[in-house]
Order: sequence, then structure tokens, then C-alpha cells
Amino acid sequence: MNFDLEEAIEVLERTPRTLEALLSGLSAGWLRSNEGEGTWNAVEVVDHLIESERTNWVPRLAFLLQEGESKSFPPFDRFAHLGQSEQPLARKLEEFQAVRTENLAKLRTLVDPERDLERTGRHPSFGIVRARELLSTWVVHDMTHIAQIVRVMAERYRTDVGPWTAFLGILKK
Amino acid sequence: MNFDLEEAIEVLERTPRTLEALLSGLSAGWLRSNEGEGTWNAVEVVDHLIESERTNWVPRLAFLLQEGESKSFPPFDRFAHLGQSEQPLARKLEEFQAVRTENLAKLRTLVDPERDLERTGRHPSFGIVRARELLSTWVVHDMTHIAQIVRVMAERYRTDVGPWTAFLGILKK
Repeated sequence: MNFDLEEAIEVLERTPRTLEALLSGLSAGWLRSNEGEGTWNAVEVVDHLIESERTNWVPRLAFLLQEGESKSFPPFDRFAHLGQSEQPLARKLEEFQAVRTENLAKLRTLVDPERDLERTGRHPSFGIVRARELLSTWVVHDMTHIAQIVRVMAERYRTDVGPWTAFLGILKK
Repeated sequence: MNFDLEEAIEVLERTPRTLEALLSGLSAGWLRSNEGEGTWNAVEVVDHLIESERTNWVPRLAFLLQEGESKSFPPFDRFAHLGQSEQPLARKLEEFQAVRTENLAKLRTLVDPERDLERTGRHPSFGIVRARELLSTWVVHDMTHIAQIVRVMAERYRTDVGPWTAFLGILKK
């Protein structure tokens, strides 16, 4: 195990600025690129990250710390964000920054890393899970979606790169 | 084909700031994480991006525009950066920003997008390649390495996430 609360927060607090640097001001061609029918573009990934802040990580953590194994987490709809918001991307990136900052402040008040990381709750499909597993997942979930955003943007140049496709791991999918 | 020079530059000019936001100030545990023997950590990826700026993209483009198909590009050593530099990451990120900015300025003087994008040169393994393919590859290469950095950092929590591993695409590798 490598989990450390302060190191996890280092990553979590950097994600909004990373997405701001990566996406802010890009042309619609990049922002609307996806991997085909039923797949998300970069903006939809940001919507999903905002929705996850609101309903998944910290709410589930608070639920676990309060209820223990007695009740399952309320289900989380991974598609709830789709088609929800017509705000411009700049506003969404600000919103993600705000809700993430707020959640990291809550996290510090909710969790004592000496005592709470191995506390258990009940996931609706996995059964018994630990606070540490939920928090690690929050971190890796950010990484998954940063990788997804660059992958869906790369898709746009799949044909343009010509023979170099052989050297570009991101196009292997 | 989707290539557009101005849109390509949009991505290329954002990568140094994206890596700065993602990596600057992270603990050594994140920066040294890799995927096992012979794989790169985040800092080695930054070294590779700097080396590629110096010897790959713009130098090859200038060579293509000057030599056409008459001579193959000088070979590019994808491992030249390994073990080369002991500078702190903050300095490397500044260096990447500086060399990228310089290369984008050169790109604008070298290429007339109305005339030069379909011009051809000779790649040592692929044979005939186009300027547009080289430039698209530069963009997708950035995306490949951003995805690689978050993937090697995610590796660190592979065990910590417990049963959520099933939902985290980045750990599927």
C-alpha cells in the first residue's frame, strides 16, 4: 500500500488547474472530439468530474464514516452529468475548481488519517470497502479522466499522423 | 483529415503549462513512480519531451523542407534523455516551456500552411512522409506523454483502490 492522505491531496488539488491549462481556450474542434457514438468529449468529462464532486467522493466518505457497514452507499449515476449543462467551458472549469477546493476542505475536517483510513462501509456492488480505497479511487479517477481527455483529443489526428501511428501508444486503443 | 496548423499550435503551446500544473511541487513518491524496470517516471518523460524539442520535431521539419525526399532524416534516439540531467524538476519544466516557445516561433517562420503541409521528406524507417504528418505527430506525441505521466502515477495506487480497480480504465494496462 502506498496511500498517504497528504500525497493524495497533492494530486487532487492540482487537477482543476491542470484541466484549466490543458483545455481553456481550445477550439471547438478539440473540445467536441470524441471516440464515436456514446463516448464523451473533453467537456463532458469535465461535467462528469463536477458531478462526481457533488455526489460521489466526499458524500460517500461522509456516509461511510457515519453509517459504517450498516447501510449501502446511495447509488451514484455515472451518466447523470450528460446533457445537463449549457454553460461555457470556462465557467465549468471554475466550478470544478470551486467544488474541488470545498471538498478538500471538508475532507480534512472529516478524516483523521491516524484513525479513519481503514474504516469500512458498504458499496452497493462491491460490498465492504475502506475509506482508504475510496480516497485512492478519487485520485486514480482524476488520472483516468485526464488520460481520457487527451486520448479523445488525439483521436482527431488518427489519420493525419500517417505512418507514425505505429509509435503513438495513445492511438493503439 | 482534421489537421489545422493554428489548432495544432493551440495544443502544443498548452503542454508546458499543463505539465507545470500537474507536476510542479509533487512529492518524490509521485515523481519517481514508474511501471517497473525499464519504464519511465514522470520526470523522465519531461526529459524526453525536452530532448524531442531539441532534436526531433522542428529540426526534422526544417530538414524535410530543405532536403525534400533526397535524404533521410538523421536518426532520433528516443532514449537519449535517460540519465542525462540532474536538474530539479522545476528547472526542467521551465526549460521545456522555453524550448517549446522557441520551437513554435520557428514553426511559424518555417511553414506556410497554404503551401507546405503536404510537402514530403524521407523518414529512415517509414520512407516518404509529409510535413502535415510530422506536425500532427508532434501534437499526438504530447498527448501520449501526458497520458503516460498520469498512468505511471496511477500505478502507485493500484493496490490501494481495492475493488474499484474494476472501474478504473487507467489500471487496465
